[in-house]
Amino acid sequence: MGRWVIISTERSRRPSDFPHAPSAPKSGQCVFCPGAENLTPPEVAAYRDNGSAPNTPGWRVRAVPNKFPALRIEGPMGRRGEGLYDLMNGVGAHEVVIETRRHDASLADLEPAEIETVLWAYRDRVLDLSKDERFRYVLIFKNHGAEAGASLEHPHSQLIALPIVPLNVQQELAGARDFYAHKERCIFCDIVDHEREHQRRLIFENEGFLVTSPFAARFPFETWVLPKNHGSHFEHAASQEYRALANALKATLSALKDAIDDPPYNYIIHSAPLREVENRFYHWHLEITPALTRVAGFEVGTGFYINPMPPEEAARILREALNERESTRVGVAR
Amino acid sequence: MGRWVIISTERSRRPSDFPHAPSAPKSGQCVFCPGAENLTPPEVAAYRDNGSAPNTPGWRVRAVPNKFPALRIEGPMGRRGEGLYDLMNGVGAHEVVIETRRHDASLADLEPAEIETVLWAYRDRVLDLSKDERFRYVLIFKNHGAEAGASLEHPHSQLIALPIVPLNVQQELAGARDFYAHKERCIFCDIVDHEREHQRRLIFENEGFLVTSPFAARFPFETWVLPKNHGSHFEHAASQEYRALANALKATLSALKDAIDDPPYNYIIHSAPLREVENRFYHWHLEITPALTRVAGFEVGTGFYINPMPPEEAARILREALNERESTRVGVAR
Repeated sequence: MGRWVIISTERSRRPSDFPHAPSAPKSGQCVFCPGAENLTPPEVAAYRDNGSAPNTPGWRVRAVPNKFPALRIEGPMGRRGEGLYDLMNGVGAHEVVIETRRHDASLADLEPAEIETVLWAYRDRVLDLSKDERFRYVLIFKNHGAEAGASLEHPHSQLIALPIVPLNVQQELAGARDFYAHKERCIFCDIVDHEREHQRRLIFENEGFLVTSPFAARFPFETWVLPKNHGSHFEHAASQEYRALANALKATLSALKDAIDDPPYNYIIHSAPLREVENRFYHWHLEITPALTRVAGFEVGTGFYINPMPPEEAARILREALNERESTRVGVAR
Repeated sequence: MGRWVIISTERSRRPSDFPHAPSAPKSGQCVFCPGAENLTPPEVAAYRDNGSAPNTPGWRVRAVPNKFPALRIEGPMGRRGEGLYDLMNGVGAHEVVIETRRHDASLADLEPAEIETVLWAYRDRVLDLSKDERFRYVLIFKNHGAEAGASLEHPHSQLIALPIVPLNVQQELAGARDFYAHKERCIFCDIVDHEREHQRRLIFENEGFLVTSPFAARFPFETWVLPKNHGSHFEHAASQEYRALANALKATLSALKDAIDDPPYNYIIHSAPLREVENRFYHWHLEITPALTRVAGFEVGTGFYINPMPPEEAARILREALNERESTRVGVAR
């Protein structure tokens, strides 16, 4: 039926993963802090001051392989059948981008220039991973807070390179392709235009990005960050777009933090599959989903969401948080 | 893009729903216990002893409208457009099936005959709700345990009647239709045959049902309960099938309870849309998903699951729990 699942017995060895237990506060050395570089696998990329040596302090952003990967980079794909079913080896890559040296900061606390470096790290890793012909997709995502699945406190994001295009990405691509076939317009460009015009679900806008509560929000305070210029691939964006995205993320994550008391959240970058040429129908973007309500088997089983918070109300609350922050900043500057 | 969402401002008035807060232990009177019938909306169905009067004690299973419904039964559908988007009024029905008088029992603790009555209540409510032409689908599901979304302890299931067919149901139907178009066989019949033959993922079998860990299990101990006879609609099953399903559920839920310490779980009955004629390609069944791992935005956003527990291992553990229970029972009987 088109569903692929990763059966990852390796990960079950991580005690916090299985069986389910509340995350205990971690004691001892944080493996992502400066000075502990030897506690992670060797770095695959780093943005460093003063030409400091790899795997030593002096980095601002650091990318390393996940010590407990869901997928492994070694070995052949081994696609095969088993009666009714298809299977392949768990080939892939699972990396961590450590976003800052500061253990207690959160992405919302960083300066836009620091966030921009994180985005460049995402891009560089995607471009590097896309050289491996076995990979068809790289998921870039962030879990913030234990309730959103973060098992370590130190701010970090994750990349998973996959030998298949995930089902929901396939469906989003197919939906966008259908829309384009009927209208010869990109549905996300239409959403940008519609939300700018109607304003009710608009949260933030700068020269490159529009931040909006989506019309069919599945979760309270679900927020989409959409590039105003059409492009199908995150990793093909123009350099000024990473700067504008960093600004938009700073504003959005700060508004969420202020308005609803630093909620746990996930974000995912939605982008077209690796190595495909730029197309007119799909439009890369970033979706932020605060983990305020519990997603249960019902939602997973049906794809049907009940959201107690109208998106217009969520947008109003986040706009007010942004205005509040802006006026406070002006007050301090005086 | 085909996504429908219920924006239910009514439900946000329930303080335990939003904002997110750990469920506090409920104090005072349970609204589902015998003697508290006046604390729920009037019953829509009940299985009663000795001709006891409606909305008084004496029931064994009782169905009532949800006091905090996600959807309301009154009013027109009001399908309309808003620029790019489509919307309709939140028309539907949301009911609760109280499974037993016993507050502290769980479905696994009930006798098969008691579980069978719960299944008849599901069937009767689906048949009654299907008379309303506005409804296209009735979801039957159960949340067991606070971590699986149950907000009340007293054992209960839920029915939601919807004016649309949920996205995942549409996809499952389309996948099954495709398979049938290629092979002229039902994919679920094939799964039943394959799993009976290979045994490795088989958990339980009786005259009517096969219980198996699915090949592409998304969650540890995900379990499917499949009728051995083909049928597309739960509500069209033969009466002996409800008895066999009650037995299979008793065995499966007991095994889960014994093997992994009464885990929180959800189950959902997958069935073809209301009032459609029986078809050869879709096969109704019940899917149980224990809530042992946290489903985060990653899984929801991608449709991509990482499962640390191979289904063959889960099946082995559940089979052993069943054997253990069987031998204990024999021991007692001697």
